[in-house]
Amino acid sequence: MRIGVVAPSCRIDEATAEKARARAAAAGAELVVHPQVFASEGHFAGSDAVRAGALLEMLADESIDWIWCARGGYGSNRIAVDVATKVPARALGKKVMGYSDAGFLLSALHKAGLEVAHGPMPADAGREGGEAALDRALAWMVRGDEAALEPDLATNRPSYAFNLEVLVSMLGTPLMPDLNGAELLVEEVAEYQYASDRALFALTQQPVRPASLRMGRFSAVPENDRPFGEEAEVMVRRWCEEAGIDYRGCADIGHDAANRVVPFGAFNHQR
Amino acid sequence: MRIGVVAPSCRIDEATAEKARARAAAAGAELVVHPQVFASEGHFAGSDAVRAGALLEMLADESIDWIWCARGGYGSNRIAVDVATKVPARALGKKVMGYSDAGFLLSALHKAGLEVAHGPMPADAGREGGEAALDRALAWMVRGDEAALEPDLATNRPSYAFNLEVLVSMLGTPLMPDLNGAELLVEEVAEYQYASDRALFALTQQPVRPASLRMGRFSAVPENDRPFGEEAEVMVRRWCEEAGIDYRGCADIGHDAANRVVPFGAFNHQR
Repeated sequence: MRIGVVAPSCRIDEATAEKARARAAAAGAELVVHPQVFASEGHFAGSDAVRAGALLEMLADESIDWIWCARGGYGSNRIAVDVATKVPARALGKKVMGYSDAGFLLSALHKAGLEVAHGPMPADAGREGGEAALDRALAWMVRGDEAALEPDLATNRPSYAFNLEVLVSMLGTPLMPDLNGAELLVEEVAEYQYASDRALFALTQQPVRPASLRMGRFSAVPENDRPFGEEAEVMVRRWCEEAGIDYRGCADIGHDAANRVVPFGAFNHQR
Repeated sequence: MRIGVVAPSCRIDEATAEKARARAAAAGAELVVHPQVFASEGHFAGSDAVRAGALLEMLADESIDWIWCARGGYGSNRIAVDVATKVPARALGKKVMGYSDAGFLLSALHKAGLEVAHGPMPADAGREGGEAALDRALAWMVRGDEAALEPDLATNRPSYAFNLEVLVSMLGTPLMPDLNGAELLVEEVAEYQYASDRALFALTQQPVRPASLRMGRFSAVPENDRPFGEEAEVMVRRWCEEAGIDYRGCADIGHDAANRVVPFGAFNHQR
């Protein structure tokens, strides 16, 4: 099992890559870290061309089984449309893992025919207890260990998991996943609650909506100059009710070390 | 001339209303301040029902010529769809002014057939030099004074002006304005530059795009943990070029006292 690491958004450092290499080795996999993950150009891990190029190299490499996004941040949207149109036919057996900003790319490559999964990334090594997050991602990639999965994934419809702001930024664009009839899991980090309310408005007022929704963790919510006045889960439930979306409770995903794996699409997790 | 003030998003205080009343009187208009503008429920100037109710009262009041949104913040999206479907026929001669979060409502009421304008609001009285902002809004509302207008409004196509995050939150929803063939002016405040880049991605990757775009002020941009590495105007120009939108330079709008008036739609400013 060879796992290729690229950074479609922001860069990681050598120490992070080394930790991920060690966890991969312990799980019985070889980590192939593309040097692009250490590149830097302004906000990004190299220019759009450099990031897209590294990703296309990994997609073309027949020795690579999984592509693992090094971290989120921001930027995978800027290359996802282009990369998705250039996926080589021989890449179609590969799988891709990431979350947060990598959601743009997950959606694009899932639409292009690859198997993709929301799940921990190498940069999670920097979190408290982050080793367990990496081990969880590797358990799914290397052994297909169902203990790594979000424990209540729908069995009667396809599942998708996204950061809420990332998902809302895809509305109407070619990257938007087809959520019709699906179960959507959303999580959020470091957004004001009013901003999440606004994002839920946008999401639930679309003509095409998910059939059901579950709420991952909404963490590190900044304090606003006035309290929002509503619990976050009440907010999510309210938008679901208004839009006729079945609210199915909390989901074990988020920007933290406990973040679980959610394979996209129709029953991929039913092996 | 009677101008009705309501607060479809967040509340204002008595002192702000008093300043606005004084400026209106100086401009020869009577300000009719709905008591709802002082209401408070969590983040909002009263519940959705209370805010919608006040707005519908003003829309139904035949003695009111203009409806002036008291301030932005967040929340007009939560009532805009409902209110737009209930606009009484006798409201169709009225006009509406606001900006920032009021953009949701401007778009909804413009689509419902009212004349609307992006422009300063009573809460701008709290800004340094804010009196001039209120006087500018009033000069347009009371006298149709073209000196209040953004000075380079397109004469060959309809104009729209929005806060960028507000506009992006309407994508795919019933509130989204029809920007096809239009000139779009966008401004932003207190958003990370990467978030604005993401919003511009979403806006410019839609199947329906404005013909041209101008950039208002992007102010109070928070410092991120890494510099974005690109001037804001270069960013805007890049997305326009990529999407085939004519970039027409800077626009004199923003979250500040210099914010100019932009009437929506086809040549409303050509009197």
